[in-house]
Amino acid sequence: MPAGPEKLLFQLFVIFVAAKIVGEAFERVRLPAVVGEIVAGALFGPYMLGLIHPTDTIHSIAEIGAIFVLFHAGLETSPQDLIRVGHKSLVVAVSGIIGPFALGFSYMKLSGESTTESTFVGAAMVATSVGITARVLADLGVLGSRTARIILGAAVFDDILGMVLLAVVAGLASSIGVQWIHLSVLTFEAVIFAVFMIFVGSRIIRPLRRRVERLSTHHAPLILSLAICLLLSWLAAKIGMAAIIGAFFAGLAFADYAPEWDLLPSVSSISDFLAPYFFFSIGSQLDVSLFRGNVLIAAVMISVLAIISKVLGCGLPLLREGLHTSLTVGFGMMPRGEVALIVALVGLNSRIVHEPTYAIVVFMTAVTTLLAPPLLRYMFRNEVREAEAATTQ
Amino acid sequence: MPAGPEKLLFQLFVIFVAAKIVGEAFERVRLPAVVGEIVAGALFGPYMLGLIHPTDTIHSIAEIGAIFVLFHAGLETSPQDLIRVGHKSLVVAVSGIIGPFALGFSYMKLSGESTTESTFVGAAMVATSVGITARVLADLGVLGSRTARIILGAAVFDDILGMVLLAVVAGLASSIGVQWIHLSVLTFEAVIFAVFMIFVGSRIIRPLRRRVERLSTHHAPLILSLAICLLLSWLAAKIGMAAIIGAFFAGLAFADYAPEWDLLPSVSSISDFLAPYFFFSIGSQLDVSLFRGNVLIAAVMISVLAIISKVLGCGLPLLREGLHTSLTVGFGMMPRGEVALIVALVGLNSRIVHEPTYAIVVFMTAVTTLLAPPLLRYMFRNEVREAEAATTQ
Repeated sequence: MPAGPEKLLFQLFVIFVAAKIVGEAFERVRLPAVVGEIVAGALFGPYMLGLIHPTDTIHSIAEIGAIFVLFHAGLETSPQDLIRVGHKSLVVAVSGIIGPFALGFSYMKLSGESTTESTFVGAAMVATSVGITARVLADLGVLGSRTARIILGAAVFDDILGMVLLAVVAGLASSIGVQWIHLSVLTFEAVIFAVFMIFVGSRIIRPLRRRVERLSTHHAPLILSLAICLLLSWLAAKIGMAAIIGAFFAGLAFADYAPEWDLLPSVSSISDFLAPYFFFSIGSQLDVSLFRGNVLIAAVMISVLAIISKVLGCGLPLLREGLHTSLTVGFGMMPRGEVALIVALVGLNSRIVHEPTYAIVVFMTAVTTLLAPPLLRYMFRNEVREAEAATTQ
Repeated sequence: MPAGPEKLLFQLFVIFVAAKIVGEAFERVRLPAVVGEIVAGALFGPYMLGLIHPTDTIHSIAEIGAIFVLFHAGLETSPQDLIRVGHKSLVVAVSGIIGPFALGFSYMKLSGESTTESTFVGAAMVATSVGITARVLADLGVLGSRTARIILGAAVFDDILGMVLLAVVAGLASSIGVQWIHLSVLTFEAVIFAVFMIFVGSRIIRPLRRRVERLSTHHAPLILSLAICLLLSWLAAKIGMAAIIGAFFAGLAFADYAPEWDLLPSVSSISDFLAPYFFFSIGSQLDVSLFRGNVLIAAVMISVLAIISKVLGCGLPLLREGLHTSLTVGFGMMPRGEVALIVALVGLNSRIVHEPTYAIVVFMTAVTTLLAPPLLRYMFRNEVREAEAATTQ
């Protein structure tokens, strides 16, 4: 063990405990724990109390945490179920992308910002955070419901589309401009990856089953699933998508074998340990001091537009299923997270987007993330009550 | 998620799979998987195939992995059991320290090395690796046996003593020289810490039990135990001991409540994921090319001395318990690991120890680590056979 691991261990301890204590406080007032963990990040992070300045290692651990949140969500989602709601999810995703982008772009452009800056804000408003949505649905215990599956499916699809948009804005940011060939390849790869994992992934595991159970390695099924999760996360990152999408697909491939191999409790334990670092890290990136005057007005406006456009865009295609389902899906698709933050960071680092615009995107991410969970809890109140009644019996 | 996580994910995937594949191969020829994971590190690491150059983040993850290996070992060790074998463990530890230090120091001194360099080699030969020993005993499924408890107890005690010696050599390495006050404080702190955790730790958890179970947080007992594990690891590092000793004590404190709270499978899952990085990382630090001529001779001699001195030193005090117990404890105490490597690294980085001496210490660490597991497996062959018969029935 190299010398001086105290700092890492101190951060690991404080972040874990801070996230869990604020999470517990939120649970007590019936708000989802995940929001508490994000608030803990904002509170103890560098911009407010300054108690914790997360190191690169903590951010890496946060990434691994995000991977396990999505892997766990995938494990709870049977591919058959996703296929059953697939066309609905796709319609919801596409319809939920056009509105936010158009509104975000137009508002910034009309406020006198440049086309590039406006494009960045529009792109950041597009992608729903699968990570936060999955965790909120899991906390509510409704991951198995049909509505939750539509939301998760749509969130996965629109993260894929968001990645394509990220490639566009990254092209805008580079001196070469948008490379359409690169973009087509990325889109093609992403679609092939998604279709392959949803339709074929699970079938590849089946013939491996007997072999895995014959291995001498302890907990061989868990080891295999972890290896595939890491492989697909890397592969997703390699072809330019978010690593977490690969992790979700890996979970999907193992979902049918999870009960037999007892994978859920194992992955849930790993996620219990690592996920708080992810949510804390999101919160720790909020610089509250930037929000005054025009920036605050723009931030509020963009947030309102992000909410309205997503709820309408995602809800409208489902109106035939009733107002309740339609609104639930709309609220479920509201939270923006890691993809929005990546888009904003790409812009900031390439100096195309200014500090205030970055702050606006982060503000929008925070507001949508903070509002969605209580709304979802309200929409799922009957299911939650039933589940609670079932456990107390 | 920051840009460019591909490299981290690639390393995470390749290290995990390489460790597990070589581990499986070793299991098949009846060698412990942990040795395979170390060999995988040597093979794929920077010095042989050069496929993986572990980054700082990987080394940090390896540290966290070591923490979970020890936390798991602690959870399987009831404090009462440790107290029952405690005086035996203490005698074994002290007796097993004098021999290696004296022989290592004398050999190097007689070979014409300086006093400082000789002290470093002697100090590096002292501390048994709790991490490797615990994992081998866990792999064999004999952690609950009395002999295993004596070994683990002694390994913990002599890691504490090793840490004190490390403070001495670190003092030698610094320009100020050995600071006896600092040293006394460290020894005092370490002893208080150990005594407190063994005798009091578990009793503090008891009144917390009802409260923990009333929390709204999911898996509250696991969360509490993880928080305490991180806290004690940091505390141990803070007062100058190895973080893993703190993790072991944390496990000890929760050992009595582990069955009721189902902690073992959860911690074991986290350890399944993180431990391979620790063992791979140990292996990846072996530079095989340094071993020729005089260095090779010295390395072999030091390794032989390290084995003989430890087996005799630890075995002799137990001769009254029979040759079998005595030899088993001797073999169990053989593997040197992280503490030896830290001692060597401290020496190398402060330029008091030269490259070849560093290589000698690493070689000795490798040999003792590679030889102990098959010897232990042989000594525990009856217990292992019984356990296997029980599972196949």
